[in-house]
Parts: sequence; C-alpha cells; structure tokens
Amino acid sequence: MSLQKVSPGRATLAEIARDASVSMSTVSKVLNGRAGVSDAVRERIEGLLHSAGYSRRGTAYEQGKLIELVFDNIDSEWSLQIIRGVERVARENGLSVILTESGGHLSLSPDWIDGILRRQPVGVILLFSNLSIDHKRQLATRNIPFVVLDPAGDPDPDVASVGSANWAGGLAATRHLVELGHRRIAMVSGPLAMLCSRARLSGYRAALEEAGIPIDPTLVDAGEFHYEDGVAAGTRLLSRADRPTAIFAGNDLQAFGVYEAARMLGLVVPDDVSVVGYDDVPSASWMGPKLTTVHQPLIEMAEQATRLVLALRDDPHRKLVRIDLATSLVVRASTAPPRG
Amino acid sequence: MSLQKVSPGRATLAEIARDASVSMSTVSKVLNGRAGVSDAVRERIEGLLHSAGYSRRGTAYEQGKLIELVFDNIDSEWSLQIIRGVERVARENGLSVILTESGGHLSLSPDWIDGILRRQPVGVILLFSNLSIDHKRQLATRNIPFVVLDPAGDPDPDVASVGSANWAGGLAATRHLVELGHRRIAMVSGPLAMLCSRARLSGYRAALEEAGIPIDPTLVDAGEFHYEDGVAAGTRLLSRADRPTAIFAGNDLQAFGVYEAARMLGLVVPDDVSVVGYDDVPSASWMGPKLTTVHQPLIEMAEQATRLVLALRDDPHRKLVRIDLATSLVVRASTAPPRG
Repeated sequence: MSLQKVSPGRATLAEIARDASVSMSTVSKVLNGRAGVSDAVRERIEGLLHSAGYSRRGTAYEQGKLIELVFDNIDSEWSLQIIRGVERVARENGLSVILTESGGHLSLSPDWIDGILRRQPVGVILLFSNLSIDHKRQLATRNIPFVVLDPAGDPDPDVASVGSANWAGGLAATRHLVELGHRRIAMVSGPLAMLCSRARLSGYRAALEEAGIPIDPTLVDAGEFHYEDGVAAGTRLLSRADRPTAIFAGNDLQAFGVYEAARMLGLVVPDDVSVVGYDDVPSASWMGPKLTTVHQPLIEMAEQATRLVLALRDDPHRKLVRIDLATSLVVRASTAPPRG
Repeated sequence: MSLQKVSPGRATLAEIARDASVSMSTVSKVLNGRAGVSDAVRERIEGLLHSAGYSRRGTAYEQGKLIELVFDNIDSEWSLQIIRGVERVARENGLSVILTESGGHLSLSPDWIDGILRRQPVGVILLFSNLSIDHKRQLATRNIPFVVLDPAGDPDPDVASVGSANWAGGLAATRHLVELGHRRIAMVSGPLAMLCSRARLSGYRAALEEAGIPIDPTLVDAGEFHYEDGVAAGTRLLSRADRPTAIFAGNDLQAFGVYEAARMLGLVVPDDVSVVGYDDVPSASWMGPKLTTVHQPLIEMAEQATRLVLALRDDPHRKLVRIDLATSLVVRASTAPPRG
C-alpha cells in the first residue's frame, strides 16, 4: 500500500553497508533502533543514510498501525483536549495512539528516538518544535513523517505544523475590552520565549494602538502559564494606586490566578476589574463568574495535525504546510464596562 | 526472559489445529487477531484454546514493549491524572503507553480486542470493569494480564483491580461537616449504578448515623458526575424553605455546579452553605473559594495499577488482588460552621 515512489538513483541498503564497511544486519539494526552497534558505527551509518537520500519504503503501515504523540509534559486540561483530538482521528483510521511524555526538558532522550525507530509508527505528532537535526534526519530516512502542534518557538521552515491564530486572538480579546470602554488594560502574558505568547502580546498592542491608547509597559507582566503566576502578577497589578480596570491573561490558568488576586484584594470581577483569558478550557465555564476567553480550537487543531501526518505518510513529497486555525472570543460574565 | 512455566499437559497449537480441523496458520491468525478467518471457525478455535488451558509463552515482552490503557471516555481532568500515572511507571520500565478510547459505550468493539491481540502488549489497564467473558478468555489464552482501575461496578472476583477507599472518603467528608456543627447535610451523589458512588453515599449515611442525625432521604440527590448535574441538584436543594446548610457532592465537578447554584440564588459559600467535593482535581484549588474536598490519589492509583499489571506479567500465577488506596480530606475554604 506504499504510495511512495522509489527514486531511480536511490541507494540500497546493500550499498550503504558496503560504503560503511559493515554487514547488512548492522545497517538493519541501526535502521530499526536496535542495540548492539557502537556509537561510532551508528553515526557513520546514519550519515550515509542521510547523504544517500535513503528513505525506507512504507511497509510498517500495515504492521504497527501506530501513531505517536509526544508531550514535554502532560499537565493540563490543554493536554487532555489534544489527546482527545488525536485519539479521535486515529480511531477513524484504525490506528492506535502511543503517548509519550518526554519529561519537560524540551528535549528528548536518545531512548525515545530508538523506540520510535523500533515501532515504526505511521507518523509522529510533537508538542514542541525544537527537534534536533539528527532526529529529523533519522525520521526522514525511516520515512516517518512528523508534525509539530502549536509550536512554542519558531518552527523551522522544513517542518509541518498546526497552530492557531494567536495574534488575532490577542487582538480580539483586547478590542473587546476597548469596546467596553476600558483604557487602562493590563496584560499578564505567557512566557515570552514562546512564539504563541509573543503573538498574543502583539495582538494586545495592536488593539491598543488602533484605539489610540498609549502603551504603558508597566502594565505588561509575564508568567509561565501557571495559576500561581496569575496570582502573583494579578496581585502586583491590582495593588497599584492606578490599577488597571481590565486584565487580559495569556491563558485561562493565569486568568484564574487573577481572579484569586482580585478576591484577596477585596475586588469583584467584573465590577472592579474585567478579566479575559485564553484557551477556553472546560473549567473556564465553571468559574464564578464564568470566564470571558479566547477559544482556541484545541481538539480541532489536534485532529488537523493527525490528518496532516497521515497525508504526509501517503505522499512524502507533499509540500510542507503550516496551518493556523481560527480563534474566537467567547464573551461570558467576567467582563463589563469600567466603573465610573 | 519469560518467567512463565509451561504446564506439562498443555495443549500445543498443533493439537488445537488438529482438533479444530484447520491449518496451523489459521490457528495463528486467530491467536494474533488477524483477518481471514470466518466467525464460526474463529469461535471454534477460541473455544478450544480456552478449554485446553492454552497460554501463549511470553515472547512479546521484548518485541512490543507496549502497555495498553483503555478508557470509555477521556473527558476530564480525572482522566489526565490516570494517564500521567500510567505513563510515569511505563517510562520507568521502558514501555510505551497505547491509549484507547472505546467511545463511551461501556463496551468495546470487536476491533479493539483484535488490535490488542495483534500488538501483544505487556498488559492492559482498563478504566471500566465489565469486560465480557469472551474478552477475558482471549486475553488469558494470549497471556496478556489486565487490571481494572477504579471500578465503576462490582469487579468480578477473577479480576485484579485498584481502587480507593470510597466509603472512608464519604465518611470523612460528612464527619467534617458534622464536626463544624452542621445538622442538615445534603448529598449530591454520583450515579448510583457505580459502586464508587454507592460507597461514598454509604459513608455519608454512616457519618450521620454515628452522630445521631436522622437521615432525610429528600436531602439526597444524584447526578452523572457532570457540572450541570451539580447546578440542577444544587438549585433544587438550595431553593427549599428548609434548605441544607451543607452539601457533600459526589465529585468535584458536581461541587463546582453547586457553587454556581448558590451564586444564582444569591447565597455565599461557605457563609450560607458549606460545600465538600470529591477527587481533588487541580481546578478545585482554582475555585473561589478554594474547594474542601476528598483527595483521591489518582496518580498513585494509576501507578499502582501499572505495577500490578507488570507483576502479573512476570508471574501469571500470582494471586489476584484488589488494592484500595487511602483517601484523605483536604480542608480548604468552602466549609465553615453554619450560621447560628
């Protein structure tokens, strides 16, 4: 069922074994991520596989019927929605999902890639974008396509990825507050090392600019997307004499933290301060008041990434794409015109 | 590396093929969940495998290094913690986790079991307990152990399972309210078809009895563990002229719903009504006020289930066990003495 075309000049495994002065079985071990090969030999063979433009013909599709989903950390409702989206499309295609947590180092152990090479999945979906060049080459020579979902940093141009319209989301959230009449609008951004955070922050700035509201850098704080960061930044911002009348948080968890900061200071949301979140995780609707937030279509993004990896499998010469799905503002009860 | 002993009188596959009047390759297809065998022949071979006490010798352990985790529905923070616990122990043991969502029918499609038989995982962790006798036999003849995690119904005596001390949790939650001075204590139970819900309800009743408080059946309502059920039941209970001064909810989501019911009726938690939840999902700490709840050690339960399935794999003759982990009450800000 392999749709891949065999290039006429493609190196065979026998040629690679000959060039590396090793047996076919040694090449096969490297190709399948198995033990019993020295690091030096492994490296030599990987180099030859790459420079020869080797690409394994698709046979695993019928065997394993696996798709791999790799997180740094499975630690929020956010992760859960990604899992559900991938699981749904995988099931439609008769595939099983292998879930891996790399352990939050934004980098993967060598074991991880060996496991993938052994299992020969149909494809890999990564929740981070900084895959090393070596790992990219290893996946390419084994003909295992991969897609980066919601990249935290700038994805390389040679990587297919699915994200969402973060800039437009930041713009919509801030415009909503401007339209309610707010002028002192703060932002508790996510980590600025992440591209998505920077895009949301740019959207916030653009909305202020188009309304002719000067940007006050002291009203911009940043956290690591955790509840506690929202409590800390919210407390700092809301303790000021000239406190903001509205706060846009870089994600829902930070918005929940801002709620707590307001409660501790005796302020009422939205009477004293309006709050907008980002993501629209299920608990946004359980808060009191229910959180106005930017809906990020996480399940659809995960579905899209899974479909994209399957399309790349069927046609490895497909042009690589970056897909951004639309975000939308969901107005609930945490925003109101400013007092006064 | 198989530790399994081969019984001297064990039927061989050749004998089973002979008894079924089929070829060895047909028996092998059935054993490995592959297509190309009629239902009638498949059924005959399954029957012979079972009655002959056939048990495949463990060779897959080195090959697949997979463990399967099967949910009805991956739909709450609850699921996420289970996934994290299983993932953690799997990683320690060099295993990958295959995640399957059966689609919420509390029953599995035949495809599902074929997938398992093909993949030959080290073991299976099920988030529901009503596995059919046929499926149990199929797993047993392939020497694939399984463990039921947090059974919703009565687990069969021939099934290993990991749960938590639900009765003790219900007792502790209600005792806490009694000790604060509450006498009109309502319960919004989870679905009574689930054993865990019935155990929590029994714990609630036991705490009232030991305090000499008569049980008022009109103060007991039940939901399906959803936020909306908490809103509906909370609204009914708190709209009564003789409304309860405290509500024990069968899980945290229902407790969040009770918060909303109180807000809509202009009541303040905990001044007008105390609320206790069950589970201690992360968002319990994000609510205003932070929710007093019974901590269920979900991650530890998942870890324990994974270790148990690995132990069963190494020693299939191990005595089956049911492990219940302890629950503990976490007192936060949603409970206070009743207004006097």
